[in-house]
Amino acid sequence: MTRSGQPASPQGDEPPPPPGFRWPDGIRAAATFTFDVDAEAAMLSDHPRTVDHLDVVAHQRYGPRTAVPRILRLLDRRGIRATFFIPGWVAEQWPAAARSIRDAGHEIAHHGYLHESVRGMDEATEEQVLVRGLEALDTVLGVRPTGYRAPNWDLNWRTPAIVARHGFRYASNLMDADHPYRLAVGPEPGAASLIELPVHWALDDWEPYNYLPGLTGTGVILSPSVVLERWTLELEALAVEGGLFNLTNHPFVSGRASRAAVLEQLIERAQAIHGLWVATCDEIAAWTEGLDLAPVVHERPSLPAL
Amino acid sequence: MTRSGQPASPQGDEPPPPPGFRWPDGIRAAATFTFDVDAEAAMLSDHPRTVDHLDVVAHQRYGPRTAVPRILRLLDRRGIRATFFIPGWVAEQWPAAARSIRDAGHEIAHHGYLHESVRGMDEATEEQVLVRGLEALDTVLGVRPTGYRAPNWDLNWRTPAIVARHGFRYASNLMDADHPYRLAVGPEPGAASLIELPVHWALDDWEPYNYLPGLTGTGVILSPSVVLERWTLELEALAVEGGLFNLTNHPFVSGRASRAAVLEQLIERAQAIHGLWVATCDEIAAWTEGLDLAPVVHERPSLPAL
Amino acid sequence: MTRSGQPASPQGDEPPPPPGFRWPDGIRAAATFTFDVDAEAAMLSDHPRTVDHLDVVAHQRYGPRTAVPRILRLLDRRGIRATFFIPGWVAEQWPAAARSIRDAGHEIAHHGYLHESVRGMDEATEEQVLVRGLEALDTVLGVRPTGYRAPNWDLNWRTPAIVARHGFRYASNLMDADHPYRLAVGPEPGAASLIELPVHWALDDWEPYNYLPGLTGTGVILSPSVVLERWTLELEALAVEGGLFNLTNHPFVSGRASRAAVLEQLIERAQAIHGLWVATCDEIAAWTEGLDLAPVVHERPSLPAL
Amino acid sequence: MTRSGQPASPQGDEPPPPPGFRWPDGIRAAATFTFDVDAEAAMLSDHPRTVDHLDVVAHQRYGPRTAVPRILRLLDRRGIRATFFIPGWVAEQWPAAARSIRDAGHEIAHHGYLHESVRGMDEATEEQVLVRGLEALDTVLGVRPTGYRAPNWDLNWRTPAIVARHGFRYASNLMDADHPYRLAVGPEPGAASLIELPVHWALDDWEPYNYLPGLTGTGVILSPSVVLERWTLELEALAVEGGLFNLTNHPFVSGRASRAAVLEQLIERAQAIHGLWVATCDEIAAWTEGLDLAPVVHERPSLPAL
Repeated sequence: MTRSGQPASPQGDEPPPPPGFRWPDGIRAAATFTFDVDAEAAMLSDHPRTVDHLDVVAHQRYGPRTAVPRILRLLDRRGIRATFFIPGWVAEQWPAAARSIRDAGHEIAHHGYLHESVRGMDEATEEQVLVRGLEALDTVLGVRPTGYRAPNWDLNWRTPAIVARHGFRYASNLMDADHPYRLAVGPEPGAASLIELPVHWALDDWEPYNYLPGLTGTGVILSPSVVLERWTLELEALAVEGGLFNLTNHPFVSGRASRAAVLEQLIERAQAIHGLWVATCDEIAAWTEGLDLAPVVHERPSLPAL
Repeated sequence: MTRSGQPASPQGDEPPPPPGFRWPDGIRAAATFTFDVDAEAAMLSDHPRTVDHLDVVAHQRYGPRTAVPRILRLLDRRGIRATFFIPGWVAEQWPAAARSIRDAGHEIAHHGYLHESVRGMDEATEEQVLVRGLEALDTVLGVRPTGYRAPNWDLNWRTPAIVARHGFRYASNLMDADHPYRLAVGPEPGAASLIELPVHWALDDWEPYNYLPGLTGTGVILSPSVVLERWTLELEALAVEGGLFNLTNHPFVSGRASRAAVLEQLIERAQAIHGLWVATCDEIAAWTEGLDLAPVVHERPSLPAL
Repeated sequence: MTRSGQPASPQGDEPPPPPGFRWPDGIRAAATFTFDVDAEAAMLSDHPRTVDHLDVVAHQRYGPRTAVPRILRLLDRRGIRATFFIPGWVAEQWPAAARSIRDAGHEIAHHGYLHESVRGMDEATEEQVLVRGLEALDTVLGVRPTGYRAPNWDLNWRTPAIVARHGFRYASNLMDADHPYRLAVGPEPGAASLIELPVHWALDDWEPYNYLPGLTGTGVILSPSVVLERWTLELEALAVEGGLFNLTNHPFVSGRASRAAVLEQLIERAQAIHGLWVATCDEIAAWTEGLDLAPVVHERPSLPAL
Repeated sequence: MTRSGQPASPQGDEPPPPPGFRWPDGIRAAATFTFDVDAEAAMLSDHPRTVDHLDVVAHQRYGPRTAVPRILRLLDRRGIRATFFIPGWVAEQWPAAARSIRDAGHEIAHHGYLHESVRGMDEATEEQVLVRGLEALDTVLGVRPTGYRAPNWDLNWRTPAIVARHGFRYASNLMDADHPYRLAVGPEPGAASLIELPVHWALDDWEPYNYLPGLTGTGVILSPSVVLERWTLELEALAVEGGLFNLTNHPFVSGRASRAAVLEQLIERAQAIHGLWVATCDEIAAWTEGLDLAPVVHERPSLPAL
């Protein structure tokens, strides 16, 4: 930090951006605040037996019932637009909550239908799930999303191609970079591409906060003040690096009172960093798309025989 | 926080309470301090083999032997009444400890018989357990409780109806809200209802503190200072939101010396917040009952076929 | 804390000691610093396959090779005597380390032979293990210990009687109290008794520090500063309560450089508390034995039939 | 710490070094900063099914794609040379990244071929893997490494002999000491020997930071500030003890922005300690080799029959 409160690189040593990448004029880094509106779907897809447990179902309903209004109020106070990834089934179950998000001007994006992992899923089913999610967002919200985030960030090697052929501009799933990039959907020359907005487990609210015995978490629930400090360090370090701070929250997790309070403090901190662009995923993807970057090709590793 | 040490909402932006809800005149939020007096029952019900392990049994007996007197002394120092959820079997095993709680003027409420989870339990057994718990509290203490908390906060979809038809005023189990509310025990029109006093895993002492190798916890035992800071943040944030801070402690866990010391500090903090009502669960439930709120209906989700 | 740096009870409200218990004149509380010298035995008994893993074996040997000399030096600097619980097999494998402990004037006590858990062990085997541990301490060190600590603090209902009939004065295993007490070894009238010096998982160095992948720990390794703060809070709170602070360390765990440094700071803190008696387990047990306390009887619970 | 900011032993009580060991004139302790460049290999060897998961593969590729350049820049800013342990397969997959490390003047050392654990591996296969790693480092980098670190720090009792007969000067795997030492590869008189540079789980970045659901970690991700504090305490304590601070980082873990920032702060702290030698593993091993120390013999324990 400089004496003016602005993050500064050590010894004024500015790192080079990836080849071909640049931010808009006057911008040196970006932050996007995203919300995965999983509600009951996150538990029902991975642990279908929890449909019998009123306690688990009610725990998940804190999101649309109590947290979404609080989060919309805080985003309004801060004057920013965020990106909400909504599973189609959640939009169908909670249409008023979903519409309140849309009507507040936030971006709506795709997050599966019942929050299904695509690991081990056959291609036809994966595409069917994607379409059903699109249909639900269209029916309930009249929205055609440009962005896709895989439930659990689980991906197979076909997923990017499926997403690209349904016309998405961007995905937000991979952990190999600090900057947005163009991702080739396969290794063959001339393969289609998507803009990728990288994420990371350390910029997710689920791990430090969430706990349901036997379902998720170990019971070590961190203090919001500790999480704020960790996220602030990464925000400031990525500002120095000129990268993208892409934070993933879940309303049922971070919409609780003291967690929402520190989330608001984090947004305030981001807004105070000179040259940091706070934007939706789609705005950042649209900018990146315009740069005509050479695509990054992720090839499937070949395991060596010994 | 304002300069006067009182929690304040950002920019004076007061959130609306749920429709129809209000606190008594002059009150803006509430806190209730509750103790689940599990003693040996919490281990014997989930892990019956531990009846053979003197070490585990003695660990649980710290509650009635050593912690309950300490907690009663600290509540007396702070001049507050708390709510003690006592499994019937525990009252039978530790009648002197149970009577000391009653005689100090605290509320006694229901917490199963041997701390049984009702997940997967048939309806007749569940009702039998509830009745046996009632009989034990009556026999040992001469008390007819108005409140019910399910062991482990485990619930099935029938539990609220069973609790309501035995005349309870309130239950304290669900995690979908920050305010007390009226819960319909089923989706049919005219269903009976209960007052629900919501809880949360982050306001429970078991996860940050408790450890028995192979039985519970990972061995990450947090410092009381860390837990105090986390709970204080949520207390202050819920005061701003006008909600209910409902803290769950266990004598064998939080009755240890340094943990009891920070619990007392937390109560002092609550008492210093202007307009915060520190009350028993029954007092808060009785107030809420008088508001004639429209009941919240929790419907069992229908899992989609793909 | 008072302004003089001495722990003080809230509002001068001194808790009563257990009936019949008192500390020596001028003493208000006590602390004992204990070391379980497990070395390889802790892994070999629970995970015999690790005998094939040089890495695990060497990890455990840090204790006698590197840590014991460091710990002896720090105890000497602080001028205190501690209690070392040494499994017989460890004394046989590391006679020089064991003798250096004895020769520095510390108490040697019993900790099994190969650090065996007595859960599920038949009575004859349990007694055989106890005798073999005694023989090893006699052969290597010429010591007849007065104290017994069960490996893992695992106990069955017969253990106290076995320990008592081999002439031990005290055991240090149970978690039901903050003060030393007399423990009846069984429920029958006139049963023999032992002095019990209670322990607790929160006053053990294994959980915050120790990690061996797949064998123990989750990989969350706490900072010594965090552990110091937690232990200091309990030390000060137990000083207020007039209890016994009984800390369990393992040389291979807490003998590492920065952990030993904070252990020394903790001992310094204990020595600075007015009226706190820093003593060996045997000294505290001998004092307690002289009080002629009524024995505490731990009965095996009867599980209810429903 | 002294008032000059230099770590000092309590009461000027300097511990003796191990028999025969000393640092170069003017040096009182040493620090080496090491990087295990695991990339995809760490997951593919232990969890081969993850080859199907683009998300896991991309997570690991953060190392060579994004982190290695950042780490090279920070080492250059600090003006130090580090040691990079690179599995042969990783060098083959990421030759440009591997060459950039070599070309920056850092030490390249051996870390298996596909990051294979040698537990349970037969001797012929273990030797084959070692050779294949050597061949890859030769082919891609033209390097013959002098140092060996076992993947996961897993060792069997034959490993040191295999490593020694392939001409390595040192290994860096064991956790039994704070100083470099000479390790006999077997118990027989006249056995060959290696220099061992001891490590420890508490000086590894994987545990506090790394998380891949179902593969590694519990989701408790510590703040870089907490990790910095813990490592700094051990650095300062080992400086007092005259030992070796041997830190293990992984580019895909600690190369993330805020973690790299605190790593740089830690290096700065090390450089500010008077008399602390910051060196590569090979430099420290070469110094130790010249001391002609008596070898430490690790014998396989004999499990007692009861």
